[in-house]
Amino acid sequence: MPGEAAETGVGGGVSDVVALAAGAAPAVRAASREVRAGWLRAIAGALDADADALVEIADRETHLGAERLRGEVARTTGQLRLFAGVLEEGSYLEAIVDAADPAAVPPRPELRRFLRPLGTVAVFSASNFPFAFSVAGGDTAAALAAGCPVVVKGHSGHPELSRATARIVTDALAAAGAPAGAFGLVEGRQAGLDLVRAPVVRAAAFTGSLAGAQGLMDEIARRSDPIPFFGELGSTNPVVVTPGAVAARGDAIIDGLVASFTLGGGQFCTKPGLVFVPRGVADDPRLRARVAERPEFTLLTDRIAAAFAPGVDRLREEGAARVVAGETSGASGPVHAVIVATDVATFVERSDALLEECFGPVTVLVEYDEIAEVVAALALVGGSLTGTLHAQPGEAIDAVVAALEERVGRVVFDGWPTGVAVTWSQHHGGPWPATTNTSTSVGATSIRRFLRPVAYQQAPSETLPADLRDEALAGIPHRRDGELVLPSPNRGTTP
Amino acid sequence: MPGEAAETGVGGGVSDVVALAAGAAPAVRAASREVRAGWLRAIAGALDADADALVEIADRETHLGAERLRGEVARTTGQLRLFAGVLEEGSYLEAIVDAADPAAVPPRPELRRFLRPLGTVAVFSASNFPFAFSVAGGDTAAALAAGCPVVVKGHSGHPELSRATARIVTDALAAAGAPAGAFGLVEGRQAGLDLVRAPVVRAAAFTGSLAGAQGLMDEIARRSDPIPFFGELGSTNPVVVTPGAVAARGDAIIDGLVASFTLGGGQFCTKPGLVFVPRGVADDPRLRARVAERPEFTLLTDRIAAAFAPGVDRLREEGAARVVAGETSGASGPVHAVIVATDVATFVERSDALLEECFGPVTVLVEYDEIAEVVAALALVGGSLTGTLHAQPGEAIDAVVAALEERVGRVVFDGWPTGVAVTWSQHHGGPWPATTNTSTSVGATSIRRFLRPVAYQQAPSETLPADLRDEALAGIPHRRDGELVLPSPNRGTTP
Repeated sequence: MPGEAAETGVGGGVSDVVALAAGAAPAVRAASREVRAGWLRAIAGALDADADALVEIADRETHLGAERLRGEVARTTGQLRLFAGVLEEGSYLEAIVDAADPAAVPPRPELRRFLRPLGTVAVFSASNFPFAFSVAGGDTAAALAAGCPVVVKGHSGHPELSRATARIVTDALAAAGAPAGAFGLVEGRQAGLDLVRAPVVRAAAFTGSLAGAQGLMDEIARRSDPIPFFGELGSTNPVVVTPGAVAARGDAIIDGLVASFTLGGGQFCTKPGLVFVPRGVADDPRLRARVAERPEFTLLTDRIAAAFAPGVDRLREEGAARVVAGETSGASGPVHAVIVATDVATFVERSDALLEECFGPVTVLVEYDEIAEVVAALALVGGSLTGTLHAQPGEAIDAVVAALEERVGRVVFDGWPTGVAVTWSQHHGGPWPATTNTSTSVGATSIRRFLRPVAYQQAPSETLPADLRDEALAGIPHRRDGELVLPSPNRGTTP
Repeated sequence: MPGEAAETGVGGGVSDVVALAAGAAPAVRAASREVRAGWLRAIAGALDADADALVEIADRETHLGAERLRGEVARTTGQLRLFAGVLEEGSYLEAIVDAADPAAVPPRPELRRFLRPLGTVAVFSASNFPFAFSVAGGDTAAALAAGCPVVVKGHSGHPELSRATARIVTDALAAAGAPAGAFGLVEGRQAGLDLVRAPVVRAAAFTGSLAGAQGLMDEIARRSDPIPFFGELGSTNPVVVTPGAVAARGDAIIDGLVASFTLGGGQFCTKPGLVFVPRGVADDPRLRARVAERPEFTLLTDRIAAAFAPGVDRLREEGAARVVAGETSGASGPVHAVIVATDVATFVERSDALLEECFGPVTVLVEYDEIAEVVAALALVGGSLTGTLHAQPGEAIDAVVAALEERVGRVVFDGWPTGVAVTWSQHHGGPWPATTNTSTSVGATSIRRFLRPVAYQQAPSETLPADLRDEALAGIPHRRDGELVLPSPNRGTTP
């Protein structure tokens, strides 16, 4: 129904916003790496400058708490600045040059290859990170870094924050000289569908549930030219605790587990949702004590809050798990943290019910007698963003590590998965359904999603993209005739 | 129908072959880079040693000619050896290490990231390159290089060659110490469907038509865990010739064009299928002369041969193009090369018919008056593997180059797209429908398709994969704390 076409937060309908973005694409692509780095830093500076006001709106809309939200702003602006550095460093272009070889059979032409921006990118915000995975979050930062205009579909869970952030991003980009249309915001479910239908949109990035993604994936499959869909869709984040670890530092593990699964009200995509523990641990009174100390949590949206108690009930009834710490109130409003427990035989029997993601402060303990049971049970666990192991030196853990590596994107040793450092090395992805792809949505390599290789055969130098000319290559790491070449240390960072 | 389950060329049903491959996966993954490089070189050596016999079978089954086929064997073994070198060099692992930073807020753990083999890969052979895109072709070489077992679904166009090649690969791998199951062959349409349904198959690579791929893509979408599908599906490979180029070297361009679109009987995925030329060129008598000199071509299969004349008729009738060189025989058997021509206004009107891929020695000339017409017409052309420009210095070609870059994976200047050098820098891919993905199926970076990142947080050194330990990293290019680090030049190449 065209009459229902969503309005954007910063003016214009979806088709206008998309047209403006597509119009900006050549200029965004043509802007030098240094110029785009400046745009990212301008956005970061503007967000930091308005952090107090933004956090106030965010807390009102998401109930995530001012402290957590201030940290999230810092993470978000740190991410923009990291990507600015990645642009200046230049490796992300993956530039490769092979000289012509007229003596080869057949003769080989000169070939230069690098990564080129895909074009306009649709970004779908998540509710649980109103800064880091929303309007100015990782996907937006990565796409702008790549040289792609971005149209964000704001999340209905924090509309006022989305608009306020969009205004700051738009103004910062304009002040930094970016073309109008480099960034846009649209709102509403219909706007999201329109976005992935638009022929000029060249990729979509999404963080949310599989159910939420399915409509978009179906729509993309109906395009005459299906586009890449980078979805982060759901993750169990299994944890394995060995007997040795419990014996050596049970206190710290229990403290850490309770802090991790209740962080942000249990609304992290890296929440440890399934914890294999030696038999007896589920009845450890320290679990009850730590959970009792946690405050009540006001969940992100009424829908999430309303789904929480039924979700826990399903774990109890269909999963045959018992509550070992905390309680469900059943009523609407704030919720208590809950731990349910079962044993590994029951888990194997009822894994479908026990693996159904329950968004909120609940986790499932699975008691085991032998580590081999854990290895067998892990085979039932789908792809996850993370897998965690708490063990002591000398314990036989190879099979557990192998099972985790096989199904997760990040293996955490003796820590907790909920912290996701934004670094060069971070990987935030995993086999289906953790993500739809082998890419990451966090860290320096997340920029790669919005680029595609193009090779130039025997191109006259003046026709090459600026980054592929010899004078530019001298300033960035690249491969030439098979050898990786670093820029000389005294190169300038300005063009 | 289980009774129709395809038999493999080297023994066993599909489920047996797949199970054997999955069983071999841990050992294939665990083999060192140097060991896997040895496997690739062993296969290359064995193929070279048997080249005469293989070429004889291939020529009988494909009619591509002994000379072309000998060249293709060399390309195939060169590719295996290139990938062996890529393994030894080690950059393909994309290893990144960030040290812990306890002073950061929040404190940052140590993180090490690299690329890990996906697991068993299904490879679907193409008919048109019975060596380079078949049993021991690029996809197989890339997957083995990545550390993945391979199950090839052989092409029905060259069954005997497929089996002979599979025997050579199997024997070479066994002699080199690779685990049984590292490579397998299955045959038949049903076997292909079974392959992409098998839970242990973690990715599929396909070269062929969109129609041929659709069944596999549908099957993959029905999996509870959809796997990556790397398809190379169809490509128009537009060429633009400027007035200046015609004036300066019309003879050479006409020679090159006729040689390129008839190469391999016009059955290359990089065949120039659409050529924009200045008005008047279509009636150049040199075109007729060069086409008349080409031999008759026996096409790859009876089906392709039977589809050729109707395809040319469709270009004439639905596309309103006229034959300007060569002729269609209409009968079965060998075919003549044909050039049809139209003008840019007709092309814009009837682009659907004129862009329908016609496999075989035919190309479509589109005459234009102004280069701006070409730029507008290119907007109707779908994603292609290549785009070619013949121009002279000083001509205004920026808009043409921009239009080509936007829709192709390789831009060729003053050459022809049918030669695809196997190098570090090659890119053989392009926007849909050229490929389903932003990856390449030729060149060093094609290995990337069969890998996914995994990060290790605070892992004890002895628990890390061998390639991520400090002593291994010293021997390969990697990034540490943001800086790219090259191995010292005097490192040994053996572990």
